[in-house]
This record gives sequence, C-alpha cells and structure tokens, in this order.
Amino acid sequence: MGGTLLYEGKTKIVELSEDGQSVILTFKDDITAGDGAKHDVLALKGQYCSEITARLMHYLNTKGIYTMFLNYIPPNKIRARKLKMIPLEVIVRFKKAGSFVRRYGGTEGEDLPVPLVEFTYKSDVMHDPLMCIEHLEVLGILSMQHATIIIDEAKKAATLLKELFTLHGFELWDIKFEYGFDESGNICLGDEISPDTMRLRKAGEIFDKDIYRRNLGNPIEKYEVVLNLCRSILL
Amino acid sequence: MGGTLLYEGKTKIVELSEDGQSVILTFKDDITAGDGAKHDVLALKGQYCSEITARLMHYLNTKGIYTMFLNYIPPNKIRARKLKMIPLEVIVRFKKAGSFVRRYGGTEGEDLPVPLVEFTYKSDVMHDPLMCIEHLEVLGILSMQHATIIIDEAKKAATLLKELFTLHGFELWDIKFEYGFDESGNICLGDEISPDTMRLRKAGEIFDKDIYRRNLGNPIEKYEVVLNLCRSILL
Repeated sequence: MGGTLLYEGKTKIVELSEDGQSVILTFKDDITAGDGAKHDVLALKGQYCSEITARLMHYLNTKGIYTMFLNYIPPNKIRARKLKMIPLEVIVRFKKAGSFVRRYGGTEGEDLPVPLVEFTYKSDVMHDPLMCIEHLEVLGILSMQHATIIIDEAKKAATLLKELFTLHGFELWDIKFEYGFDESGNICLGDEISPDTMRLRKAGEIFDKDIYRRNLGNPIEKYEVVLNLCRSILL
Repeated sequence: MGGTLLYEGKTKIVELSEDGQSVILTFKDDITAGDGAKHDVLALKGQYCSEITARLMHYLNTKGIYTMFLNYIPPNKIRARKLKMIPLEVIVRFKKAGSFVRRYGGTEGEDLPVPLVEFTYKSDVMHDPLMCIEHLEVLGILSMQHATIIIDEAKKAATLLKELFTLHGFELWDIKFEYGFDESGNICLGDEISPDTMRLRKAGEIFDKDIYRRNLGNPIEKYEVVLNLCRSILL
C-alpha cells in the first residue's frame, strides 16, 4: 500500500509516503498564470522546479529556517514533512512589481524602503484578495500570534535567498511562500521555491514566471540557469 | 476678502473662512457611486447630509472624540477646523457588507466577531485599494504610530454612533471616516458622517446610500428619517 493521493493542485501532486510518516510531492510540468486562466505544459519544468525547491529549501534548513524539505527524489519528487497548509500566499517584496503595482501604482522594479510582507487568500474565484493581519484574525484564518511568526520567518527566509542570489549576480525582487502547521503545531515553510514563485532578474533579464505571464516565450532555458546556480548548494 | 476655494470634491466644497482661522464646508446635492461612474443631483441632499454631519460630529465631540466640527451654518454648510487631510478611507465594520463581501465572500449583514478597521487609499483610478498598516508605512502615507491612533479613534467613534443608533432601533453595519492633521499635528476626524458614509438598517429596511448604489429609487426620504433621528442631538 502507500501513495494515497492527498491533494492534486495546478502544478503539484501530494501523496502520503508508504510508511505514512511523510508526504511525496510530485512536481508537474504544468504552468499556469492569471488565476489559472492561462495554462500550458512545459517539458522539464516539473523536474527543474522540484530540484530548485529541494536545493533552496535545503539551503534554508542549513541556515536555521524550518522547512518541509526532507530529501530530493530525482527527477521530480520531494519527500517532505506532513503539513496542514494555511490557505494563504505570503509575499515578501523587496521591489514594487506585479499585483503591488496594479494595486498601488509605481514602477516595476522600484525599491521599497524596507521588505514588505503581504498575505493574500488563496482563491482563484476571489482572485487572491489581499488580507491584513486583522482580516486573518477576524475571519478565523490565522491568529495574530501565528501571523506574526510567519511575517518574521518569511522576512528571514526571503532575505537569506536574496543574499544567496546576490552572490551570483541576481536580484530577487519578490518571493511567494506558503506555510503550514506540522504535527506538533509548529509553523513550517512548505510548497515550492522556484522561478514560478519569485521574481528573479539579472541585468534587466527575466529569469522567472513573468516570461510566461507576459508571453515572452518558453521560460525553461532561464529556469535551467537558475537550476545550475542552485547546484552550488550541495544536497 | 475670504471664501478662498481650497478644494472641490464630488460632494463638497471647502473654502477658507473669512478670518482664515477655519474652513467652510458646503455640502452639494450631488451623489455618486462606483468611483464616480454613477452620478446624480438630489434636491435637499446637501442640506440633510450637512445637518446630519453637524449633529453627529457634535455628539462625538461631547463624548470626547476630537472632530473638525465647530458650528452648523444652515442650510448646508459647516464651519470646521482646518485639517491637512490624509488620503485614506477608514472603514469600521460591524457586519460584512459591500466591498468586504466582494473581496472575501460571506453574506451581507453577517456579524463580524469584533469590529474590523480597514484602510483604503482614496483613488477612483485605482478603485480605492485596501492597504494594511505595513503598506501605509512603506509607502510613506502614515506612520505606524498615527495608524494605531486612527484605528483606536475610529473604533471608539463608530461604537459611540452604533450605540446611539441602537437606541433608536437602527443597526449600524459599517461606517467610513476620513481623518486629517490639525495645525498642531493632532489626528482629527473630518469630512462627513451621514447616510452617504455608513450602512444603516432598521428591520431589513435600508436608510443609506445603498438605496442609490442599487438603483432602489430616491433615497432622500430615508435620509430625512435619519436627520429627524439626529435632531434629538441638540446643537
């Protein structure tokens, strides 16, 4: 027995491991944008994003960030901690871009004076609405205490990744995290860390899902550049 | 001299008083909705809304809330403190309705467990986007300290008005305030308090601008009911 399907999302499948003590995430080759309105299948995408996620989460683990990552199962699977996921996207922004610019104006790539953490509610139907801490509490999604832990953890993790990418000459503009509770009720970083979940630039060149969002061609070669950079992190 | 025009908005004109020590607000008969997309002129509306604002702000003054209100100049003017207005709508919600339901779902009129304060940025072009305290600070709109004062003041004022309306058998669902800084830099409640800026219900009947927003006819008779209720507050 084993391999019980727990969840299938747009880009990942989550199954219970054979011993029931962990989960196996399978990264699909699907790519989507615009709340699922745009959808394609790109060869190698699942493989690249799973290995990038594995290496970046391993890196964060070594830096004291608590992530879901247990081990990488090539080519496109990760063994991870069982988490009860919180239905929020946690965005850390170093520069203005994307939905921030659509909401508040300003210029893509403009610096923010300090990192900004935003929560959006994961709902394609409602178009991932922004939620302030007060909304999370009033709607019973997250306590003030847990929200504060997540803000702190997200800023730490994003800053570590920004510093790592800076060493390789890349600019991390923003990044989206998802968190869950482990079986002891601790907040743990889950989901994925890849060019699908961040804005990564180098000398004006795009190395992230904006290539796909803006119909600038197949992003997979750029994802491969990011993968090669991440291979400096030894598993 | 005197009467220098300082500002003309969709529903109000602000002029400097003759001695330059205060401002005169003239309430127009205009009514708008949908970021100005819907617009009409309703006889008596300016008169009713100015007198309601005068009486409700006077009431709040007597309860220790610092408002702009100095005196009512019938039929449709208010003498008020000079304020440097903050470009935010401060919404206190007791029940789910309007943009809250559009953003997060739920049912119109559903109770919130505690009063919720929301900030939206006043911009018809950007459709009044929601801002969390962190956005206000990062974008240089309001310091954390001033935001905290406003949240506290808005909750106090809304709760006082809710209690007042409850005495008359009305339910206050939500209310929008606007704040400014007086010449000493103190946060002061400004703008307007009227059926244009709140949701007020009685036994399922609507006594606020939702009558207009939803094309349910001329709201002026209902506004008159609210005015008569407010006349129990003596100026």
